[in-house]
Amino acid sequence: MRLPINGSDVREAASRINGSVVHTPIVTSRLLNHWLGHNFFFKMESLQRVGAFKARGALNALSRAVEQGTKVSRVIANSSGNHAQAVAWAASSLGLKSTIYMPSNVSKIKAQATASYGAEVVFGDTREWVDLEVAHQAKEFGTLWVPPYNHRDVMAGQGTAVLEALTQVPDIDLIAAPCGGGGLLSGSLAIARDLAPNAEVIGAEPLEANDAARSLRATRICSLETPSSTLADGARTICVGDLTFPMLQQLDGFYEVSEGRIAYWYQWLNHLLKYQIEPTSAMSMDAVIQHLSCASNGNATQPRNILVVLSGGNVDTSMRQLLWSQDFFSEIPSL
Amino acid sequence: MRLPINGSDVREAASRINGSVVHTPIVTSRLLNHWLGHNFFFKMESLQRVGAFKARGALNALSRAVEQGTKVSRVIANSSGNHAQAVAWAASSLGLKSTIYMPSNVSKIKAQATASYGAEVVFGDTREWVDLEVAHQAKEFGTLWVPPYNHRDVMAGQGTAVLEALTQVPDIDLIAAPCGGGGLLSGSLAIARDLAPNAEVIGAEPLEANDAARSLRATRICSLETPSSTLADGARTICVGDLTFPMLQQLDGFYEVSEGRIAYWYQWLNHLLKYQIEPTSAMSMDAVIQHLSCASNGNATQPRNILVVLSGGNVDTSMRQLLWSQDFFSEIPSL
Repeated sequence: MRLPINGSDVREAASRINGSVVHTPIVTSRLLNHWLGHNFFFKMESLQRVGAFKARGALNALSRAVEQGTKVSRVIANSSGNHAQAVAWAASSLGLKSTIYMPSNVSKIKAQATASYGAEVVFGDTREWVDLEVAHQAKEFGTLWVPPYNHRDVMAGQGTAVLEALTQVPDIDLIAAPCGGGGLLSGSLAIARDLAPNAEVIGAEPLEANDAARSLRATRICSLETPSSTLADGARTICVGDLTFPMLQQLDGFYEVSEGRIAYWYQWLNHLLKYQIEPTSAMSMDAVIQHLSCASNGNATQPRNILVVLSGGNVDTSMRQLLWSQDFFSEIPSL
Repeated sequence: MRLPINGSDVREAASRINGSVVHTPIVTSRLLNHWLGHNFFFKMESLQRVGAFKARGALNALSRAVEQGTKVSRVIANSSGNHAQAVAWAASSLGLKSTIYMPSNVSKIKAQATASYGAEVVFGDTREWVDLEVAHQAKEFGTLWVPPYNHRDVMAGQGTAVLEALTQVPDIDLIAAPCGGGGLLSGSLAIARDLAPNAEVIGAEPLEANDAARSLRATRICSLETPSSTLADGARTICVGDLTFPMLQQLDGFYEVSEGRIAYWYQWLNHLLKYQIEPTSAMSMDAVIQHLSCASNGNATQPRNILVVLSGGNVDTSMRQLLWSQDFFSEIPSL
């Protein structure tokens, strides 16, 4: 079967955007490795431009459009999250004007950050209006819409985080990343199959927003009936895309994570690593634990080298209050 | 006047502990520099061993004692904070046994961390009992007490953070650090006067625990009458020491910071830098702002190169709840 993207797409994306995005570090915790008996390598996309891997996908998509001679007089996107800032930043860095459409209930600091990257921010009363308006605007000549995940160049660009990590750490044999719309996992899978064919690639999704898990079980794309307010706010996506879904079907494991476990790993990773990370990022740790807890997957004596993509570091104040409302430090991480 | 320590002491400390402590990175924020019109360089001692600069002082003091042939069969310290972990870690790394005395109301995670570095942890009902017991134990032959700040080797060791930073960033002309007992500021001042004689060095203290500021005004050491519960929990010290006080008297500015401003900078630095830092560290930013707000100190057109020592990254859950209970993001940092 021919998949929507492959390793070459990710490698091309990397050569397109390298130098403009941050070569983010790999961070480790001796204590965590000691407790879990495996070697964890955290790829700090929280230190990426705009604080999330989304910068990679947006820049790749825009750069490729410009390269191909597409007439772009204005870039548009609809997002209340990291993708908004990513498109604003990527457009500015290519000297393009951008307009970002956001629901008016978006947090002030996110709107402010998006504007600070040079975008015009347009507020709509509801998410539905925003989505319709963008679809309408996208028809105008010279206007380029950058979707958040269901786009080959976005997926390939997002996968460059894992490409980079595989050059930073040898012999990775398990890779974990969160699933919102599936773009990061698609790119990660494409490059892993190419450069580290023996590595398993697994995904994590909030149990409360488990459209992808349900889609994988049903072997067709299912949507959430109502939007979720999961702590993993980067993974509240209603459904995956027709380009990302066949990629997700190739994964070596896909795990649903409860709200309690999202907060648990959020607290522990923040505490142990001393970096700000999003709850969406922390979620991947629980997927790894679930995966390793199957005896056949690694609860053996041999320590595995595990890459966890910490996808972003943007957290609202109200979200922080929720995340720290309980204390999870009495239970030490274990397998 | 001959001061308790000078630049040579700090340089010797560095050659003693380099390789065993983390060469911590310098981090910057374009947005913050843009808003404030100066170049801020943050020295990330939050990424130091045990999550704080305290590791430098403890290791220097213990290493020097061993070097000088002191018979050490056991190392002891009294602390409920980062110093406890620092002494436990430093002792283990030199193959020495340690006992840390803590009040029993210390947070479980701090006690656990101290034990995880190999120390025996002994709890006492009150801080007073702990202090008396340590003074008693310290008289035993072969028992070495490492005080948290009022000790030349501790002060010199702590100053290596700034020595390192001055080799990482050229042309620093303002250095800011927090004041608990004054050890970090003492070491910082000693090395700055030596390597960057034109740089100003300033200190920050919580207004609610302003024993050092009051001492500087009175030109003699004053103590807090009751312990403070300031957000800057690394600076709750009752009084500075007879060795650190004369160093503090040489500073180019010393500023008291309100609880609101501690929380303000805690939120903004965590948000902009994407690293976990302690409220005690964040406090220094307000000292810089107060210092620059005097027209003669730098509110001129010339951007200054400012080193801010972010001293640690350990924050309890209950402290996080306090720190995020209000949202300070509506007011953008400015001079």
